Amino acid sequence: MSRPIEVLPVHGIGEIQPGDDLAELISKAADLRDGDVVVVTQKVVSKAENRLVDIDPEIGHKALVERESVRVLRRRGDLIISETEHGFVCANAGIDLSNVEEGRAALLPLNSDRSARRIRDSLKHRLGFAVAVIVSDTFGRPWRRGVTDVAIGCAGLRPVVDLRGTTDALGRELQVTEVAIVDEIASAAELVMGKAEGIPVAVVRGLDASWLGCGSIGDDVVRKPADDLFR
Amino acid sequence: MSRPIEVLPVHGIGEIQPGDDLAELISKAADLRDGDVVVVTQKVVSKAENRLVDIDPEIGHKALVERESVRVLRRRGDLIISETEHGFVCANAGIDLSNVEEGRAALLPLNSDRSARRIRDSLKHRLGFAVAVIVSDTFGRPWRRGVTDVAIGCAGLRPVVDLRGTTDALGRELQVTEVAIVDEIASAAELVMGKAEGIPVAVVRGLDASWLGCGSIGDDVVRKPADDLFR
Repeated sequence: MSRPIEVLPVHGIGEIQPGDDLAELISKAADLRDGDVVVVTQKVVSKAENRLVDIDPEIGHKALVERESVRVLRRRGDLIISETEHGFVCANAGIDLSNVEEGRAALLPLNSDRSARRIRDSLKHRLGFAVAVIVSDTFGRPWRRGVTDVAIGCAGLRPVVDLRGTTDALGRELQVTEVAIVDEIASAAELVMGKAEGIPVAVVRGLDASWLGCGSIGDDVVRKPADDLFR
Repeated sequence: MSRPIEVLPVHGIGEIQPGDDLAELISKAADLRDGDVVVVTQKVVSKAENRLVDIDPEIGHKALVERESVRVLRRRGDLIISETEHGFVCANAGIDLSNVEEGRAALLPLNSDRSARRIRDSLKHRLGFAVAVIVSDTFGRPWRRGVTDVAIGCAGLRPVVDLRGTTDALGRELQVTEVAIVDEIASAAELVMGKAEGIPVAVVRGLDASWLGCGSIGDDVVRKPADDLFR
């Protein structure tokens, strides 16, 4: 029997500075429960981890994008679609110019799965129970207009749930097998974050407990170039 | 001030037969409120609209996929990634073999935006107030493993919310502009549907009221080939 889920914005996190302890801020601002999934945006993780860099005014942020890319897939005007060293394919190597000071840019965390694990471990220590943590970012898609939030790091959650071997309502084996619940949770969280409102954290409550467990975005979600039809 | 949202599975819809009145079944099974967004899976819409066809056992479903495609982007083994006449780029032209009788397949609705409008109009007539309706389907993504649910039709909702011109928390204009909330809502709904449990409808409650309005997937989300870097 499927249960309702709730998506709760976490108010009061405030502006993040390099060195800030996100777990401390989250544990104070959110009333967390066992089994919750905490979604934290890339931007505040990058800020807390001091992934801020200066943009050389002579050459703009394009040189940064090139430096942070291992493979450029497409260019059009100022837009570069590239693959980052983490294996993410996204616009401008995930470099963020909004919500940071003029002349500065926020790079992606070095390893967002590790960032998620660190926040999760610290929250567990503070709370005495376990929550899952997702680091989310905003990516475009080919073929469809508009951006959506996806997960670039996670801890305490199986990112892709394999429904292979389960049967559909008519008793036949299902065709569709692996659901990227981690990205669906990141998207759900985005709906309460509101880009301009400064809500960098949301809690998703009531998810299937069997989805909690181990896994990472690097191992379970990033598709290897050899398995990919569009690289 | 951002508010929480709820995602509610709708139990008791049962197996859908060609000709079934989805709005009637939904209005009986769900306790809907003004401003709710009702997400209905493609499969039950296709069944209700009798988009079921026989699969020729001699040639399998591949001929059907070819017939339902206007452009093939990639092939690997049995998998075909193609563009449908609606402009969707997806696996096997969106043709569904699970949850339909052996030897039969469910094609996409002829026009899922129209399907959504029809369900919405009928619900409005029955309820006396307006809800938004999304028809959802399960698509894969390049570069990332696992499938997620997206919207293939909608009514009563602005599918893409334009944040251009709004400013971030530091007063600077935002870089990220257009959020495909319609796909994020479809993904959120999938989290309570559970492929094998036969829950084809979910309600998302508490979304920003300013997102209600006009728009369609065909006009607002499907990217035209000329604007697309991956076709």
